[in-house]
Amino acid sequence: MPEKKAILLDCDPGHDDAVAILMALKSEKIDLRAITVVAGNQTLEKNVNNTLHVCQHMGSNVAVYAGCDRPLLKEPFHAGFVHGESGLDGVEFEPLEKTARNRHAVSFITDYLNAALEPVTVVATGPLTNIALALRLCPKIAGRIGEILLMGGSMGAGNITPAAEFNMFCDPEAADIVFRSGIPVRMVGLDVTQKAMCVPAIYERIRAHGGKACELFGDMMQYYCMMEKEVFGVEGGALHDPVTIAWLIDPEILRFEPMLVEVDRIPGPSYGRTNCDRHHLRSEPANAMVATEIDVERFWTVVEETLKKEDKS
Amino acid sequence: MPEKKAILLDCDPGHDDAVAILMALKSEKIDLRAITVVAGNQTLEKNVNNTLHVCQHMGSNVAVYAGCDRPLLKEPFHAGFVHGESGLDGVEFEPLEKTARNRHAVSFITDYLNAALEPVTVVATGPLTNIALALRLCPKIAGRIGEILLMGGSMGAGNITPAAEFNMFCDPEAADIVFRSGIPVRMVGLDVTQKAMCVPAIYERIRAHGGKACELFGDMMQYYCMMEKEVFGVEGGALHDPVTIAWLIDPEILRFEPMLVEVDRIPGPSYGRTNCDRHHLRSEPANAMVATEIDVERFWTVVEETLKKEDKS
Amino acid sequence: MPEKKAILLDCDPGHDDAVAILMALKSEKIDLRAITVVAGNQTLEKNVNNTLHVCQHMGSNVAVYAGCDRPLLKEPFHAGFVHGESGLDGVEFEPLEKTARNRHAVSFITDYLNAALEPVTVVATGPLTNIALALRLCPKIAGRIGEILLMGGSMGAGNITPAAEFNMFCDPEAADIVFRSGIPVRMVGLDVTQKAMCVPAIYERIRAHGGKACELFGDMMQYYCMMEKEVFGVEGGALHDPVTIAWLIDPEILRFEPMLVEVDRIPGPSYGRTNCDRHHLRSEPANAMVATEIDVERFWTVVEETLKKEDKS
Amino acid sequence: MPEKKAILLDCDPGHDDAVAILMALKSEKIDLRAITVVAGNQTLEKNVNNTLHVCQHMGSNVAVYAGCDRPLLKEPFHAGFVHGESGLDGVEFEPLEKTARNRHAVSFITDYLNAALEPVTVVATGPLTNIALALRLCPKIAGRIGEILLMGGSMGAGNITPAAEFNMFCDPEAADIVFRSGIPVRMVGLDVTQKAMCVPAIYERIRAHGGKACELFGDMMQYYCMMEKEVFGVEGGALHDPVTIAWLIDPEILRFEPMLVEVDRIPGPSYGRTNCDRHHLRSEPANAMVATEIDVERFWTVVEETLKKEDKS
Repeated sequence: MPEKKAILLDCDPGHDDAVAILMALKSEKIDLRAITVVAGNQTLEKNVNNTLHVCQHMGSNVAVYAGCDRPLLKEPFHAGFVHGESGLDGVEFEPLEKTARNRHAVSFITDYLNAALEPVTVVATGPLTNIALALRLCPKIAGRIGEILLMGGSMGAGNITPAAEFNMFCDPEAADIVFRSGIPVRMVGLDVTQKAMCVPAIYERIRAHGGKACELFGDMMQYYCMMEKEVFGVEGGALHDPVTIAWLIDPEILRFEPMLVEVDRIPGPSYGRTNCDRHHLRSEPANAMVATEIDVERFWTVVEETLKKEDKS
Repeated sequence: MPEKKAILLDCDPGHDDAVAILMALKSEKIDLRAITVVAGNQTLEKNVNNTLHVCQHMGSNVAVYAGCDRPLLKEPFHAGFVHGESGLDGVEFEPLEKTARNRHAVSFITDYLNAALEPVTVVATGPLTNIALALRLCPKIAGRIGEILLMGGSMGAGNITPAAEFNMFCDPEAADIVFRSGIPVRMVGLDVTQKAMCVPAIYERIRAHGGKACELFGDMMQYYCMMEKEVFGVEGGALHDPVTIAWLIDPEILRFEPMLVEVDRIPGPSYGRTNCDRHHLRSEPANAMVATEIDVERFWTVVEETLKKEDKS
Repeated sequence: MPEKKAILLDCDPGHDDAVAILMALKSEKIDLRAITVVAGNQTLEKNVNNTLHVCQHMGSNVAVYAGCDRPLLKEPFHAGFVHGESGLDGVEFEPLEKTARNRHAVSFITDYLNAALEPVTVVATGPLTNIALALRLCPKIAGRIGEILLMGGSMGAGNITPAAEFNMFCDPEAADIVFRSGIPVRMVGLDVTQKAMCVPAIYERIRAHGGKACELFGDMMQYYCMMEKEVFGVEGGALHDPVTIAWLIDPEILRFEPMLVEVDRIPGPSYGRTNCDRHHLRSEPANAMVATEIDVERFWTVVEETLKKEDKS
Repeated sequence: MPEKKAILLDCDPGHDDAVAILMALKSEKIDLRAITVVAGNQTLEKNVNNTLHVCQHMGSNVAVYAGCDRPLLKEPFHAGFVHGESGLDGVEFEPLEKTARNRHAVSFITDYLNAALEPVTVVATGPLTNIALALRLCPKIAGRIGEILLMGGSMGAGNITPAAEFNMFCDPEAADIVFRSGIPVRMVGLDVTQKAMCVPAIYERIRAHGGKACELFGDMMQYYCMMEKEVFGVEGGALHDPVTIAWLIDPEILRFEPMLVEVDRIPGPSYGRTNCDRHHLRSEPANAMVATEIDVERFWTVVEETLKKEDKS
């Protein structure tokens, strides 16, 4: 039996976050210790509800904590234009019975990490507000984090402005704190996630497997692909967030290169951009491993194989 | 008997912070509920030690909490060139027995305010890191703060860069959060505090009253004035922080005008500047009351009368 | 007979620029070689017309050149709210017969300076666009300029934004070029010019002398003071630009200190601010002499004595 | 006989600029009216010398004008690390007899365009300092320019910083002026030029044709490819600048899309970046046609066919 990788998942579901949760819940290689939620794709309240719905739907009793309801400095900015009014439009869930724990996510994160006996991997698929605040409130947790594996940023162009990717744009200052923290950071950005294009043929094939996860995946992707097409004019929807979890399951999926990543935190046309020094143009050392290539076929295999597993129980 | 004003004091002693503590401890008009400490004039550890020393020296059992050890985004920056290696050079204290509470200042602030039955005045005489983090972690405390009375900023020139005052410069992003918070802010900046010049004649006169507070004041000011003279080339040292406490004791000391205050949070030559729209050049409404005039004589009377009071209890 | 000081005057009349022209034309200590005009208080066209009107009214045949019609990078910004629709509202002139020379001001400046046998003083009372472009087009003219004496900037607060003075705000990039040019710069900013307040008692006394200059001065100031009062809520109008010319006539009027002046050229809340390092907080050397004190009484004496002189002929 | 396209070429040779000159001189579809030179790859003086050498070598009497020796605001920055000490290292020329015209490039550009009877295409393969200054000095030339076809910028990452392409980085403010000018701009950026990789097989094949142009091309490329490999670690050197001229000769080479291009002119990590709104994320209209695809094979055919033509005259 493979050793499971202990992770904290910090997210803002969001369709692609929801798929990441599904995969983290189903994979036998992942030990999802808790889910912390942050404002981003939608308001904090909506993102928490969506998280609880997905977990309840899957019969999981993983602890869920609500975190920050707005970025450090920027005005809140959400992506209802992609994820709909609820942040997870397109699916109907049973009435919600599962509740979030009565404690702030940042407080949970600091206490959990302080008590951890081994380094924990923090997977972040939303704005980095919770993580950044935890680092500022309790600097010594840096030593308890094995790695921050984040979906966000771009070596090339952005997707919410010409310069910036959505998660980084939502809270550039939090991103700056994370990239300067000295903790090993693994950045999975648009350069690879935009190649993880979910098209109807894919989600229909996966839905056809049946089972709670595959069917939920199919329903969510149907809505998401429709919206992504409307906004970006492309066929299909980029399944950004799950690339992180997929890589934890199968490290052959991505290729990384060490780089200096510098977040632009100056309000202006490049606000929130992750400037990635791939070609070592600057003299400063690398502070992150940045995903440069993705094996798309292998990615879809991992998604499909993970989602169609029989439910844990 | 006058009603006492309940305050939390967030500070980074530092000589002038220490005088503010002395005055808050001695005044019968002030009910000092707790002291929270932040990195600023010196490192967090040194500032906490100095706070404890002053309180112990005065026989006070006020609770002291250690907060953030660095600003939100900027690299830490201290003022040893004014306050010396210890942050409170020039005085000798008894060995330290008093200890800080075993809890983070930000956590204390949020819990204390949440439990408060009446609006509390927060007096901030250091960088605003603790206050800003508390506001982000627990937004609803905004409703429990009657007013944030802060020493910091400048309508005119700065004192640590040509543009910025020291406290604002140390954590411009935290200051930005505070000024945009919607909470009533009362800014006591260099425009008035630089007129509160403590010269030898003053501190010698006050020291001559005898008593713990007056003698400590005299010792601290002797060192501080020497250093201020060395750095700024002026005769005497500006007693910045105590102007806040003095105004709580005697509101005739300062005149305020409502203004829009916008903190420059762009790393560049004006980083940390408080742009104060005194003449309503911009269309946005005021977000702060800014001190524009000080009655210097009355200020010194309040300082002297407060410090020379017999010790409480 | 005193030696005359050769100057080029670059301006944007504007009521206070117009007074500077009057004084330059009348003073026996000044040899006004040419006037170059730039967009600022009003559009280039209006400023040129106003310049020509004033010169024609005074019977002067000084050459006038039209320069840049907009700043280097910023969108054009004018001050009709102070100087009126024409840029010199409140006075009626004879129909205009005098015309500007058929040549761009920047081209004139570079050629004139290149041919100059002795260093020339450039007096600039508008945005620095013409001067900056001339320096970029023909760098070697830097060696022919004895000094750039400019009205603009502020050590303290601004007058068009809380951070910036009008001339600097209109073209911060041009100002940056000038202050970094290595040419001796003498900055006469709001710190002194706002004390040169023209009130009704003053302009009425001067108008009462009679003569073209004094009467024109009276008419212009009557309108200007009314507008300044409306905009800034102060009694009287600050006679900014003429302080430069007055100092050329009587150097006792101002006291200067050497400082590093750094123009904020980052679009943001401090855009256009002149950060003046009066207290040597930064390690870089001074690049300008900045006016710190004005002898107001002596200033008005110079204005009055100069304007009431019999017309040159 | 095909109609020739009248162009002004503004450049900073530099190896790839030199190839652009060769092609402009040789092509029967191009009527090269003049060459204006700007500081960039090397100092102005060196770039002028290189231009003259190439023209003299080819027996051309095209007029050459020296322009600006530094950017509008930034400190000068050159690329000796790619183009060598001379700016065109690796080739030996005959002693220079040809001289630049005795007139500033900016002055030539404004006068030439003012006198032009038909719209002129301005091809810019260096920093945009000359063009920007000409536009500010003589705004009406905007109406005489049919199109500004420039090599510079990037939709994706940069090549001199992680954010910025070299020409844009050298003078971001000039680039900002050009992109906001309202003149039709056609941007040929790294997104296509980095695919125009000149490898030894190519330059050896072209050199083998013999003739002055082909042999000079071979010599220059041999050095350039060696240096590019050293700096960027890639095999071969990207032939950036000639893509502009090749497109004039054969418009099938590039595909363009209309976009809003916004130059980041804030000193910071993204200074000089061209943010290209390819997916219409912002509401502002397009201000440029940006090259998105290149037919690489066809490009090399055009280069080869053009260079191997018998010399004109």
